[in-house]
Amino acid sequence: MALVVIGGVAAGLSAAARARRLDPRLDILVLEKGNVISYGACGLPFFIEGRVRDARELTVYTPEYFRRQRNIEVRTGARVVSISHSRREVALESGERVRYDKLVIATGARAGAAGITGADRPHVFRLHTYDDAVRLKAFLAEKRPKRAVVIGAGYVGVEAADALRRNGLAVTVLEQGPNALLRDDPRLTAALQKQLERHGVELRCGAAVAVIEPDHVAGVPCELVILSAGFTPNVELAAEAGVEIGRTGAIRVDDRTETSLRGIFAAGDCAETFHLVSGRPAYIPLGTTANKMGRVAGANAAGARERFPGVAGTTIVGAFGMAFAVTGFSAAQARSEGFSPVLARVEAPVRPKYYQAAFGAPRSSLTTVELVADRATRRLIGGTVIGEDGAAGRINVIAAALAARMKVEDFEALDLAYSPPFAAVWDPLLIAAQQLVKEF
Amino acid sequence: MALVVIGGVAAGLSAAARARRLDPRLDILVLEKGNVISYGACGLPFFIEGRVRDARELTVYTPEYFRRQRNIEVRTGARVVSISHSRREVALESGERVRYDKLVIATGARAGAAGITGADRPHVFRLHTYDDAVRLKAFLAEKRPKRAVVIGAGYVGVEAADALRRNGLAVTVLEQGPNALLRDDPRLTAALQKQLERHGVELRCGAAVAVIEPDHVAGVPCELVILSAGFTPNVELAAEAGVEIGRTGAIRVDDRTETSLRGIFAAGDCAETFHLVSGRPAYIPLGTTANKMGRVAGANAAGARERFPGVAGTTIVGAFGMAFAVTGFSAAQARSEGFSPVLARVEAPVRPKYYQAAFGAPRSSLTTVELVADRATRRLIGGTVIGEDGAAGRINVIAAALAARMKVEDFEALDLAYSPPFAAVWDPLLIAAQQLVKEF
Repeated sequence: MALVVIGGVAAGLSAAARARRLDPRLDILVLEKGNVISYGACGLPFFIEGRVRDARELTVYTPEYFRRQRNIEVRTGARVVSISHSRREVALESGERVRYDKLVIATGARAGAAGITGADRPHVFRLHTYDDAVRLKAFLAEKRPKRAVVIGAGYVGVEAADALRRNGLAVTVLEQGPNALLRDDPRLTAALQKQLERHGVELRCGAAVAVIEPDHVAGVPCELVILSAGFTPNVELAAEAGVEIGRTGAIRVDDRTETSLRGIFAAGDCAETFHLVSGRPAYIPLGTTANKMGRVAGANAAGARERFPGVAGTTIVGAFGMAFAVTGFSAAQARSEGFSPVLARVEAPVRPKYYQAAFGAPRSSLTTVELVADRATRRLIGGTVIGEDGAAGRINVIAAALAARMKVEDFEALDLAYSPPFAAVWDPLLIAAQQLVKEF
Repeated sequence: MALVVIGGVAAGLSAAARARRLDPRLDILVLEKGNVISYGACGLPFFIEGRVRDARELTVYTPEYFRRQRNIEVRTGARVVSISHSRREVALESGERVRYDKLVIATGARAGAAGITGADRPHVFRLHTYDDAVRLKAFLAEKRPKRAVVIGAGYVGVEAADALRRNGLAVTVLEQGPNALLRDDPRLTAALQKQLERHGVELRCGAAVAVIEPDHVAGVPCELVILSAGFTPNVELAAEAGVEIGRTGAIRVDDRTETSLRGIFAAGDCAETFHLVSGRPAYIPLGTTANKMGRVAGANAAGARERFPGVAGTTIVGAFGMAFAVTGFSAAQARSEGFSPVLARVEAPVRPKYYQAAFGAPRSSLTTVELVADRATRRLIGGTVIGEDGAAGRINVIAAALAARMKVEDFEALDLAYSPPFAAVWDPLLIAAQQLVKEF
């Protein structure tokens, strides 16, 4: 039995490693078109920022490691140009053909810039691959740009703006849509805008960019441009092989991550998943999802029968020390998904006031929690947490409640930890839930 | 309609405030035997430690506030000596009688020291009430003791040891039982012991104390003794009135917090609650529970029909910056509750290694997560988190899973937040869940 995996980053390597664990005798080959594998792509902004000094620190595993420790063959610089499923083989750019019994497609996504003229100018960078980051870093050192424009206010755009601003550049973020962070939520956008402006970064929403000029973008003068305007899933290879593409534009898979062609699985940024609140297909490319889907794809390719239950769309991003975390649907998204949303938003202290006062305030004591529930079923269907302390933990509690299809009354009664150094007697999550109950 | 509440701290005041919110016309009287109300008892160790400088900062509300802002009459120094439910009246120490239609008993608990000779010596202190703390603080300032013995390694004992050690005292903690933190869990005890010893505090378990001598306890020389050996619920008043006491020794209540006598409710440290994992009555006196139960008691006393769904026993305590957090049952507790526990314990980094390395390590990057599931049903039934970063958030995710009766596979699939500054791509919770699945 031969398993071939196309793509050697998060989803691909997770699939290969899991398949090996379940079946020691499988022949496993990973084909990666780039020069490095297994790098922490989410760490690239922190390499640009400077606190991760050497991009090589972002590389978790080497091909040698996989070969020796896992008995998995990993080839870099190996670009697959076609898949012939009837012959069960893939063709490489070199002309070589490789047979498979099971195939995992983990071709990822590419940073989008559809229709922007001038996107290939030498001062325009993406921040998506290891090589992108190394080239941008060299540009910063050599050209010492003073002003940057970031196109796109998604997660990478915000992290890039933070990183460049901390390097002393004047930064303007231009977002085509009405809202930032890929979420239909004006209040989240307003909170982010306030935090960015407090640290000298301008955020303009509704700012479509058609042309990147050598010295300005949409009238904003700059010597550096970061393109972070969305992702396009790399589905061409799969589509040409006859694999069905979903309505989101990504590869359609079932809840076992199998594609429309038996024996071909897909996982990570190239694939659709299910939104566990709506039960519908969704395209939410994230590193955590890639790793989890990859594990399931690898297990099933190795003959197991595992299910990937979908995602809640939980994400967190930092901007100058403040975390912006979301899960499930915003009120507006809930409405377009057919729910009748009920919403509560509170700002509350994360620790008792006397403790906060006594220990000084290296971080703000206040956190914002927003909860969204469905009027008909009283189920929680979304949440937002904004704060400098404990935002990840709080959004994760909401994510667990979404997965459990928890009602707002049950959420309100959660027995959360309390002790002055760590939490307030009424956690902001519970105060928000009390408020939400009143809104029904 | 007259509502009388006996006790003016967490449960009593929560009950009064909630009743007022639901019924603006109710006559509400709170009778508190002490001199202050609404103080953050959980903050007392931090007043002893010194970073909360004035004990008055721990007082959240005054009787005046309740009178003016909430139209709730609060009398301090008003000790109730008997309840006559047939006449619907309580008698005060002064001889005065007060009529009620509904009664909430929130008489709390007292710090235990059953059977210890010498517990009334002048160098022996409890750390349970506002007055306890003020007297201990004065003793520390006047007598400048060099060595302290803390009797009891529960939450207050550990916080007291931390506070005294930071004040420069040599501290020994003597625990009668085999384990610390009120939990049948040798590994938790060992982890706590290690952390305490690293900071110069000795913890001895299995060290029963019969006598407190003027200059030593069980052979440990000391000029100061803290008695923090368990709580005894204040049930005498209720019992004499004919209210049923549960097998735990606390006041028995139904899931609406009503006692065996119709119209009398009980909440907080004097009352039993339900353990939501076992469904059985439990006595777990904590500030959060007191507040939540109080709210439900107040609502139902005001005519609503609200349910208190029970507790998971979630607690967190800090020792020199390290958090020790638990929820549900330990493996040993699970066994004595009739479960067949399956256990996994992992130590894993809370952030990507490259990020942790780059940003230095003000806190340790490793956290310990232990999960306990039931073999028959695969339900999660308990968890432990030990770490310097994010322990509250992680234990709360487990607590939410317990409330939702989540199975280990569903927990493993949780869509938790990931971004290098805040979390690892595989949160330690998920790594523990993966390990747990393998143990079945």
